[in-house]
Amino acid sequence: MPIVLAASVENAGILLALVIMLAAAKILAEVFERLKQPAVVGEILAGVLIGPSLLNWVQPSEFINIIAEIGIIFLLFNVGLETKPQAILDVGKRAVVVAVLGVVVPFIAGYFIAVWWGGSTVEALFIGAALVATSVGITARVLGGMGLLDTLTSRIILGAAVIDDILGLLILSVVSSFSKGSVDYWRLAGTAGLAIFFTLFVAFFGAKLMTRLAPKIENLHISKPFFNAGLILCLGLSFAAIHIGVAAIIGAFLAGMMLAEATEENRKMHKLTSGVTEFLVPFFLVNIGMQLNLSIFKDISVVILAVVITIVAVLTKFIGCGLGAYGLGWKRSAQVGIGMIPRGEVGIVVAQIGLGLAAISEQFFASVLFMAIATTLIAPPFIKILFEGEKAKLEAEQAEKDIHLSDIFSRIG
Amino acid sequence: MPIVLAASVENAGILLALVIMLAAAKILAEVFERLKQPAVVGEILAGVLIGPSLLNWVQPSEFINIIAEIGIIFLLFNVGLETKPQAILDVGKRAVVVAVLGVVVPFIAGYFIAVWWGGSTVEALFIGAALVATSVGITARVLGGMGLLDTLTSRIILGAAVIDDILGLLILSVVSSFSKGSVDYWRLAGTAGLAIFFTLFVAFFGAKLMTRLAPKIENLHISKPFFNAGLILCLGLSFAAIHIGVAAIIGAFLAGMMLAEATEENRKMHKLTSGVTEFLVPFFLVNIGMQLNLSIFKDISVVILAVVITIVAVLTKFIGCGLGAYGLGWKRSAQVGIGMIPRGEVGIVVAQIGLGLAAISEQFFASVLFMAIATTLIAPPFIKILFEGEKAKLEAEQAEKDIHLSDIFSRIG
Repeated sequence: MPIVLAASVENAGILLALVIMLAAAKILAEVFERLKQPAVVGEILAGVLIGPSLLNWVQPSEFINIIAEIGIIFLLFNVGLETKPQAILDVGKRAVVVAVLGVVVPFIAGYFIAVWWGGSTVEALFIGAALVATSVGITARVLGGMGLLDTLTSRIILGAAVIDDILGLLILSVVSSFSKGSVDYWRLAGTAGLAIFFTLFVAFFGAKLMTRLAPKIENLHISKPFFNAGLILCLGLSFAAIHIGVAAIIGAFLAGMMLAEATEENRKMHKLTSGVTEFLVPFFLVNIGMQLNLSIFKDISVVILAVVITIVAVLTKFIGCGLGAYGLGWKRSAQVGIGMIPRGEVGIVVAQIGLGLAAISEQFFASVLFMAIATTLIAPPFIKILFEGEKAKLEAEQAEKDIHLSDIFSRIG
Repeated sequence: MPIVLAASVENAGILLALVIMLAAAKILAEVFERLKQPAVVGEILAGVLIGPSLLNWVQPSEFINIIAEIGIIFLLFNVGLETKPQAILDVGKRAVVVAVLGVVVPFIAGYFIAVWWGGSTVEALFIGAALVATSVGITARVLGGMGLLDTLTSRIILGAAVIDDILGLLILSVVSSFSKGSVDYWRLAGTAGLAIFFTLFVAFFGAKLMTRLAPKIENLHISKPFFNAGLILCLGLSFAAIHIGVAAIIGAFLAGMMLAEATEENRKMHKLTSGVTEFLVPFFLVNIGMQLNLSIFKDISVVILAVVITIVAVLTKFIGCGLGAYGLGWKRSAQVGIGMIPRGEVGIVVAQIGLGLAAISEQFFASVLFMAIATTLIAPPFIKILFEGEKAKLEAEQAEKDIHLSDIFSRIG
């Protein structure tokens, strides 16, 4: 054995675990990208592969859990940074209706499916909550990759996904409080009220406060002042959120939204933040995969439950959001409905919190994980089919513009 | 107490610690920047302030140690990214002579001062090693802040600082091996040889390999392929370095250098990497400050030792590097000598490793920490005085260029 530096030696095992997690995540992400499937699914499956279920190269640990939690915090902070309060107002009532129906229908359906399956009330509430949240990141990424972020339906989807995210996080807070055993409804209402007050206060006064503070922050002498202020705000509100009674990720998301319209500096900060996010999020995704207990799928009834929950997740989101887009024509309704289907990491977070609280069984956790992965796999191909005509339209419009331009140029010439 | 989410609760204490560390670091960095002193000193003093010595708001922990270690790894990776092998070759023999004399003189002086003070051989070797390494980051930052990175002496300083860094890290590896008790000189030579071979192999073949692989990496389907490949390489070589017998930071530095001239993609990656570095390095600096035992300074003999080591550190670097620049005129010699004085984080790393190995006493550790901070505080004002004329010259040259340009423009007009 070579002579080594003791100060580093104790951390060598952790470095090796981090390298394996990162490399496995990126190799499977590459495979999935090439199969035109979301990278996020590959990174979760990388965790299943290297985790205790299969290869057992890396085991979950307290350190990895914390790194993973900081990873989700940065992920939601980044989503917040892309969510200007104004952008939500612009999309207007339509997005609200789509979001609300897209939350209510899956929640109720999920609740009753779980009860019908024999789950407890808390369990059923968690399954409902897990079916609620559309993954803003995945939806935006798929549409952005197609160059279709500018269509009417894309805007509705993005606006609705953001509202849906907030509603989902609030439902999660309420459900989590509910699961804490002592079902004190007054306290529950208090927590919900406090959570809503915290959210609204930070989202509205916070954004204004940061817009005022922005010039002062930019005048600071430290390097990257906006980035550092953002980091402190992100971690500070994440802690404050926990202290007030909501999830850390709500605090992180609100911190991002507070900064979203502050200044142009935001752009520079966003790049630095996305570096941290890109570094840490794989550990979050791999960590989730590592916690999947594959042996549970030997039980045929769990396979049935997973498939049933997935079908319910797809249909209820499609129907709920499609109904919300009623009046825009059947095609746009279908576009909105299908665009809201991916649950991705948000559904997994809910299941993970439920598991962490011992509020849901391993069977329900495995089924929800399957649903989150399956919806994320199912949606993209359908989005492609339904938006294909849209693409041709945009191209035709573009071509028409070009003709007009060449017209103008030929007149100038 | 409000109802909280259990999954986040266990990490709430860590979030709070991170917020306090980051906020304290940035507040003191701001104060020091306003006092025209290096931010890095403020961040270390923030650790002294909030650590067990004074306020005791945050205590060192295994988690913070690991985060801090990943912080140094990214810091050295970033320095490596800015160090093209070609840039070292360009500065040529002069930088090598400056670096070697700037390493040999402080090392020998540090060794004998420590022996004279009653230190053991291992202790004396560590004190010598701690006096060796100029902080590339701090030197480059001071000169860059003055807009003087383009002068001849600045280039020599940067080139020499890089070589000095590599020599310092190699000396550290040798000294660390030496301190491991069993003084097996063959093994020592083997470790040194392996370290040098690893360094040269990775630096030269690695850079060529990455230049070849770069187009393939860019063609990957995952987002930010170069950044992710860089992360895996950085953490992978950090682990490999430990396994081979050198410090993790050498691996990280070499990983950076391998990528430094690969492609233009490097620039984009550098921004993302600097986000991670900017986030994690404060924890490294604050963590160091937290480990300072202030009570040791109640002993007047330690105060004397700290001052003596600091004087030796300033004079030996100034004389050694100044001699290396012999023939460029006394002023340029002085510029080079003074520019190499700041020891910053590198001197602290050596002392910390020595302390971690139980190779140096608390007294020597405290004195070296004082020296690293003091040299970083002392150098910048002198750099300003010595480079002031240089600035006027550069401005005169610029003004002359402007006159030529206005001449040309008036002729065109």
